[in-house]
Amino acid sequence: MGSRTLVQPGGGRQVLALNLKARSAKPSKRQLFVVAERTIDVRTRAAATAERPLAVPQQEDNENYGVFRLTYDISNEDPKLTRTWKKTIKVAVSGAAGQISNHLLFMLASGGVFGLDQPISLQLLGSERSREALEGVAMELEDSLYPLLREVKIGIDPHKVFKDADWALLIGAKPRGPGMERADLLDINGQIFQEQGKALNEVASEDVRVLVVGNPCNTNALIAMENAPRIPRKNFHALTRLDENRAKCQLALKAERFYTSVTNTCVWGNHSTTQVPDFVNAKIGGEPAEQVINDDKWFKEDFTPKVATRGGALIKKWGRSSAASTAVSVADAIKSLTTPTPEGDCFSTAVCTDGNPYGIAEGIIFSMPCRSKGDGSYEVIDDFIIDDWLRAKIKESEEELLKERACVGHLIPNAPPAACEITLDTMLPGEN
Amino acid sequence: MGSRTLVQPGGGRQVLALNLKARSAKPSKRQLFVVAERTIDVRTRAAATAERPLAVPQQEDNENYGVFRLTYDISNEDPKLTRTWKKTIKVAVSGAAGQISNHLLFMLASGGVFGLDQPISLQLLGSERSREALEGVAMELEDSLYPLLREVKIGIDPHKVFKDADWALLIGAKPRGPGMERADLLDINGQIFQEQGKALNEVASEDVRVLVVGNPCNTNALIAMENAPRIPRKNFHALTRLDENRAKCQLALKAERFYTSVTNTCVWGNHSTTQVPDFVNAKIGGEPAEQVINDDKWFKEDFTPKVATRGGALIKKWGRSSAASTAVSVADAIKSLTTPTPEGDCFSTAVCTDGNPYGIAEGIIFSMPCRSKGDGSYEVIDDFIIDDWLRAKIKESEEELLKERACVGHLIPNAPPAACEITLDTMLPGEN
Repeated sequence: MGSRTLVQPGGGRQVLALNLKARSAKPSKRQLFVVAERTIDVRTRAAATAERPLAVPQQEDNENYGVFRLTYDISNEDPKLTRTWKKTIKVAVSGAAGQISNHLLFMLASGGVFGLDQPISLQLLGSERSREALEGVAMELEDSLYPLLREVKIGIDPHKVFKDADWALLIGAKPRGPGMERADLLDINGQIFQEQGKALNEVASEDVRVLVVGNPCNTNALIAMENAPRIPRKNFHALTRLDENRAKCQLALKAERFYTSVTNTCVWGNHSTTQVPDFVNAKIGGEPAEQVINDDKWFKEDFTPKVATRGGALIKKWGRSSAASTAVSVADAIKSLTTPTPEGDCFSTAVCTDGNPYGIAEGIIFSMPCRSKGDGSYEVIDDFIIDDWLRAKIKESEEELLKERACVGHLIPNAPPAACEITLDTMLPGEN
Repeated sequence: MGSRTLVQPGGGRQVLALNLKARSAKPSKRQLFVVAERTIDVRTRAAATAERPLAVPQQEDNENYGVFRLTYDISNEDPKLTRTWKKTIKVAVSGAAGQISNHLLFMLASGGVFGLDQPISLQLLGSERSREALEGVAMELEDSLYPLLREVKIGIDPHKVFKDADWALLIGAKPRGPGMERADLLDINGQIFQEQGKALNEVASEDVRVLVVGNPCNTNALIAMENAPRIPRKNFHALTRLDENRAKCQLALKAERFYTSVTNTCVWGNHSTTQVPDFVNAKIGGEPAEQVINDDKWFKEDFTPKVATRGGALIKKWGRSSAASTAVSVADAIKSLTTPTPEGDCFSTAVCTDGNPYGIAEGIIFSMPCRSKGDGSYEVIDDFIIDDWLRAKIKESEEELLKERACVGHLIPNAPPAACEITLDTMLPGEN
């Protein structure tokens, strides 16, 4: 079958491509052929134009993604719908066939994360094992008819899937197998993030924002960052927003106030049991949380475990991990970077400690209170009160992350020699 | 523990309640107590007021929902956030611990369905077996901090959970067990919808909109409707929107056009293999689909199976049923009733055939092309072209639904005696 592209006089090109090729490996018993790579790509018109598009031959797609493309003319699309749209952004998602992604992708495609004027391309990374499930996800996205969803690409090679990505949401990671030590997990997932860091370095947009969700996420983000020297170190994040959301919920429950009244709540440090939900700077109804709740024992003994074991409590009830609320927190983390932070508020995100104002060791990925102008970037807020309790807890999480870094030195270019000395297991309950 | 309510001078009341009671049945081994009913309820302020709320004792909650309530003062909420909000709507959802709901509830709570100025109360119905999973869902909704989500109530008695519901989304149904005939399934699920119809009749808002998703959804909706004489028959729907979405996607793929260009696409009849995706009236880029695609054989032989077996194709890829895109289609079905239908377009929904303009037998729930002013109601479009092909296909689906009705006469008050004569299995592949 042939291949055509319609190019508009203004330069906008619309392509909707469906690539099929026979799998070279032996076919599974229950089917005759496999869709190897499938791309649905309709680029947004650069600008509304009164002129009609011309059909011209398309350049051959020389990537390994398939043998033919069908090409779609969207010139009949209602300009009322598309005229005010921004330039399409490309969002790469790893672990795309997993449960968290199964929520997140639909949130992204609906416009609920980047906005209703933001067309989006989804570039989905799976594993060889999840290849068919990825196709299923792509089919469900098709059937959802989201107007803003302009491209769905699936694949198993990060060097292809991350191509030109403006955002990379790295959700996939190996779960811990039976008898596996934390050091083993750091190594096995570290290798994945080493490869993905290199792939981002080679093919992603040079200003790509990277958000790591797969655990242990802080150190995975560090490995990706250290393997991607072309990308600003500031652009790497590990997800602690779910911890922040859970902390706000617990403060609201304790204070008997609705959760919208809880602000300025940072969760510091590692996304592990050493995480530090900050009640010292948190506000409830604009007043210090410690004054509103006035229960020092609760703050110091109950609050952190309530936040850190929430996932474990949930898995007991629910029988599986908290995919939906994790996806919501990923959406929140993105929105915190793409919309201005309200006056007097903050958001938590684990970022590189280089030059941080709190004396935390440099060169680790550590959750700190941040603000954003909504341009995709952020600054670390420098005036949070650090009392003795907070300082000691932050130190503990910092030491843990330094130990984690020492265990993955072999995955970081030019890392100084260090011994791996992790003994305690600080994985959060309910997470792999 | 005590219970308080804060009543505002203007009459607005804010309640955030958490009900706990020990389970009377013997506890499971892995826990000491069970949260029996849990309610999180913060009513929206009736109007912004400069006066401060007063704390006054709350009336005892005499429903069986628990033993205590914690009460939350939301008077400190930012009036910029809430001033323009509408009155809270109550949305009851059955099968709330299932996969479809796990997507849908978060779409509802985010404002993505009813709008960003529409506070919402979720009233979640599960089964005894899913009680703990329901609590897990409620916990995840809490952790998501959705500002619009003002109440989460869970329970297993429809007579309580459907109380004052403005919408009832009936998703839960028993899956077909091994060796179970379609007639058995009609009976076993029919009993559920008989009970839920009666419950809606007794306790729901008198203008409640009911959308049945649990299969066999058309006849389940009929049973619910016939058992709820207080509620207008026009208010009952069965979901055929997923079929419509899939039909549009297949037309787009065949026409090599983006799916937003496909309009006026009705899927007639039963949500089963006898469904009738209508290519006669469908438009692509404003032109008749038959002219754009010009392939009579494809329309008559391939199109319907492509739509009807999509769920089955997906389950083969994905390993599970298409929960996310089903939830999206439920959201679409709701939005079609709450926003005006664009000029020249339609949406598909299975509704009561009483007085329909196409001569379809009355007293069944049959999918037809509809329009809405966005007020929650609809009218059946009366000028769709019915050619011989369409007429014959519609007749087939009509006859199937008449047979289904005859099989559930024992569940419908004052139904005339009829013999159950279902022989063919027309369940859609990939559905239970």
